[in-house]
Amino acid sequence: MGKGRVEAFTDGVVAIIITIMVLELKVPHGEDFSALAPVWPIFLSYVLSFINVGIYWNNLHNMFHTVQRVDGRVLWANLNLLFWLSLMPATTAFMGENHFAPVPVAVYGVDLALCAIGFNILTLALHRLHGNETLFARALGNDLKGKISLVLYLSAIALTFVNHWIGVAIYVLVAMVWLVPDRRFERLIEK
Amino acid sequence: MGKGRVEAFTDGVVAIIITIMVLELKVPHGEDFSALAPVWPIFLSYVLSFINVGIYWNNLHNMFHTVQRVDGRVLWANLNLLFWLSLMPATTAFMGENHFAPVPVAVYGVDLALCAIGFNILTLALHRLHGNETLFARALGNDLKGKISLVLYLSAIALTFVNHWIGVAIYVLVAMVWLVPDRRFERLIEK
Amino acid sequence: MGKGRVEAFTDGVVAIIITIMVLELKVPHGEDFSALAPVWPIFLSYVLSFINVGIYWNNLHNMFHTVQRVDGRVLWANLNLLFWLSLMPATTAFMGENHFAPVPVAVYGVDLALCAIGFNILTLALHRLHGNETLFARALGNDLKGKISLVLYLSAIALTFVNHWIGVAIYVLVAMVWLVPDRRFERLIEK
Amino acid sequence: MGKGRVEAFTDGVVAIIITIMVLELKVPHGEDFSALAPVWPIFLSYVLSFINVGIYWNNLHNMFHTVQRVDGRVLWANLNLLFWLSLMPATTAFMGENHFAPVPVAVYGVDLALCAIGFNILTLALHRLHGNETLFARALGNDLKGKISLVLYLSAIALTFVNHWIGVAIYVLVAMVWLVPDRRFERLIEK
Repeated sequence: MGKGRVEAFTDGVVAIIITIMVLELKVPHGEDFSALAPVWPIFLSYVLSFINVGIYWNNLHNMFHTVQRVDGRVLWANLNLLFWLSLMPATTAFMGENHFAPVPVAVYGVDLALCAIGFNILTLALHRLHGNETLFARALGNDLKGKISLVLYLSAIALTFVNHWIGVAIYVLVAMVWLVPDRRFERLIEK
Repeated sequence: MGKGRVEAFTDGVVAIIITIMVLELKVPHGEDFSALAPVWPIFLSYVLSFINVGIYWNNLHNMFHTVQRVDGRVLWANLNLLFWLSLMPATTAFMGENHFAPVPVAVYGVDLALCAIGFNILTLALHRLHGNETLFARALGNDLKGKISLVLYLSAIALTFVNHWIGVAIYVLVAMVWLVPDRRFERLIEK
Repeated sequence: MGKGRVEAFTDGVVAIIITIMVLELKVPHGEDFSALAPVWPIFLSYVLSFINVGIYWNNLHNMFHTVQRVDGRVLWANLNLLFWLSLMPATTAFMGENHFAPVPVAVYGVDLALCAIGFNILTLALHRLHGNETLFARALGNDLKGKISLVLYLSAIALTFVNHWIGVAIYVLVAMVWLVPDRRFERLIEK
Repeated sequence: MGKGRVEAFTDGVVAIIITIMVLELKVPHGEDFSALAPVWPIFLSYVLSFINVGIYWNNLHNMFHTVQRVDGRVLWANLNLLFWLSLMPATTAFMGENHFAPVPVAVYGVDLALCAIGFNILTLALHRLHGNETLFARALGNDLKGKISLVLYLSAIALTFVNHWIGVAIYVLVAMVWLVPDRRFERLIEK
C-alpha cells in the first residue's frame, strides 16, 4: 500500500489541529490593554502547543520520508497518534484557562505522554513492516530521545503536584530539545 | 474523469470532520479532578466517533484504490456520504452531552445507518461505472459485512428504547468488527 | 503559472467551508425528541447550503480541468469567489436560526448572487487568459445557465418580501437545476 | 529535503486560517435589517484580513515556486510565520467586535508587523540555503516592498493612539499595494 495518501491525510489532520487551537483563544471583551491580561496564560499555552504540534509534524515528515510502505497496522497506529494530538486544543485550553493550575497541567502532560507513546507505537509498527536493515530502522536507532522524553513527561506529571511550574518547565525543556529538527533522519536522507 | 481530485477532496473533508469533532469537547470549567467528571461521556462518544470516521477513511482509502475513474453520479454519491459523515460531530456531541440518553443514542444510530446506506449507494455508483469483471467488483463481492452492519444499526436504534446501553454496545461491536481493516481490498491490491 | 496549487488550495478552502457549516448546527439541549424540533430549520438550511457548496466544488472541479494556466488576475478572481462562499456558514445559520424569516432569506440570496457573480468574474478572467478557441471557451459557451441563475437569485431576493417561501423555493429550484453536473465541460473532456 | 510537503502543509494551514476566520462572524440575533448593524465592523475587519491572508498565500505561492529545497531552519521559519498568521482570526475579531477601538487596532497591527517580520525571516532562511546567484535571490532583490510595509505597520501602530482611523487607513493602504501580485517572482518564472 502506498504511503502517499497516509502522508497527505496525516499532514491534513495536523494542519487542522495546529490551526483550530487558535479558536480556543477566545476574543477578549473590552477595548483597552487590561482586556488582554486574562488572555496571556491562554496565549502562552497556545505557543507551547503550537511548538509541540509543529515538532510532531516535523518528525512525522522526516520519518515518513524514510518509509517505503504502510499496512493496516500502521494506518491505525497513525490514527491513534492523531487521536491524542487532536486532544491538544482541548487540553491546551484547559491548562491556559485555569492559569496553569496543577490538575490541568497534569492533564496536559498526560496528553503529551500519550502522544509520545503513540509516536513510539507508530515507529514499532513501521519497524515491524520494514525490518532491521532498512533506512528507516537505521535512522530511528534505539530512539533514546523519544524514551527520555516520555520519562520526562511522566516526571513532570508527578512533580506538578509539588509545584505546577516544575511541570510546565519540563514541558518547555522537552520542547526545546526537540525544536532542533531530528537530524537522525535528515542525515540519512542526505547520504 | 480522474479520481485524484475526488480522493483528495474526500480525504480533506474526512480529515476536517475527524478533527473538528474535538471542538465539541468543551473545555471543563474548574481546575481540579472533579471538573473532568462531566467530560467523560462526551470523551467516550468522541472516541467512538473518531474510530467510526477512521474506519470510513480507511475503507474509502482502500476502495478508491481499486477504482479507475469517477463520473457525476459517483461525485454526488460521495458528497451524500460526506454529508452524513459531516453530521457526526453534532450527533456525537448530542449523545455525549446527554450522557447516552435513549433519544440521542437513537439519533446517533440513525446517522450511522445513513452513513452505511450512503457508503452502499457509493459502491453501487462505482459498480455501475466499472462493471462486474473489474478489480473493484471482485474486491467488493456481495458486501455482506456492510449489509450486516446496517441491520445491526437498525436493531440498535430500536433496542435503545428498551435499554440505551444495548444500542451503545451494538455501535461498539460494529466498530470493533470494522477496526480490522477491510482485507478484501488489500488482498486484491497485493495480487 | 501552474494551475495545480490553485486547484489544491481551492479544494481545501471549499472542503473546509462545507465541513465547518456543521459547527453552526448547535447541539440541541434536552434529551427527548422535542429537543430536536428547533434544530429542523437549521438542518434544512444546512442541507441546502451543503448542496450549493457541493455544486460549486463540482463546477470548479470541471472548469479547472479544461484550463491550462492561471495568472494573478485569476488568483484574485478565485479568492473573490472563495470569499463569498466562505460567508455561506454565517448566512446559512442566520437563515436557519431565524426560521426562514424574510430578511435572513434575502441576505442568504444576496450571498448566493454574489457567489454567482464571483463565478462569472472567474470565468471571464480565465477566458481572457485562454482566448476564444480553447477547450475552456468552447466548454463554457455563453454560460446561459449561470446568467439565468443570477436573474433567479435576484428575483428571489425581491419576492422574499412578498412571501419568504417564494425565495426559498427559488433557491431550491436553482440548486435542483445545477445538481445535474455541468455536462458542457464533461462532454468536451470526453472528446 | 523536498519542498513539496512543506508547500502542501503551508497551503493547508493558510486555507484553514482564511476559512475559520468566518467562524468569528457570529450569527446576528434577530430577523430584521437592524440585526445586521452590529455585524458591519466585524464584517469589514474580516474583509481586510481575508485580503491580507490572501496576499500571504499569493506571495508564499510565488516564492516557493522559485525555491529548490528546504531545510530544518526553513521549516521552523515557515512555522513561525504560520503562527503569527494563525493569530489573525483572533486579532481580527478583537478589532471588529470593539468597533476599531485604538488598542484592538494596535494589537491587529502588531500581528501584521510580526507576520511581515516572519515573512522576512523566512526569506532570509531561504536565501541562506540558496545563495546569491539563484533564481530565488534575484527574484527577491533587496525586498524594499517588504521593508516599507513593516515601517508602515509600525507607524500605524503608533498613529492609532492619535486617531485609530489613521491606523486602519494605513493597513488598507498596505493591503492595496500588495494586492497587485508580486511581479518580481512572476517575471522571473516567465523567463
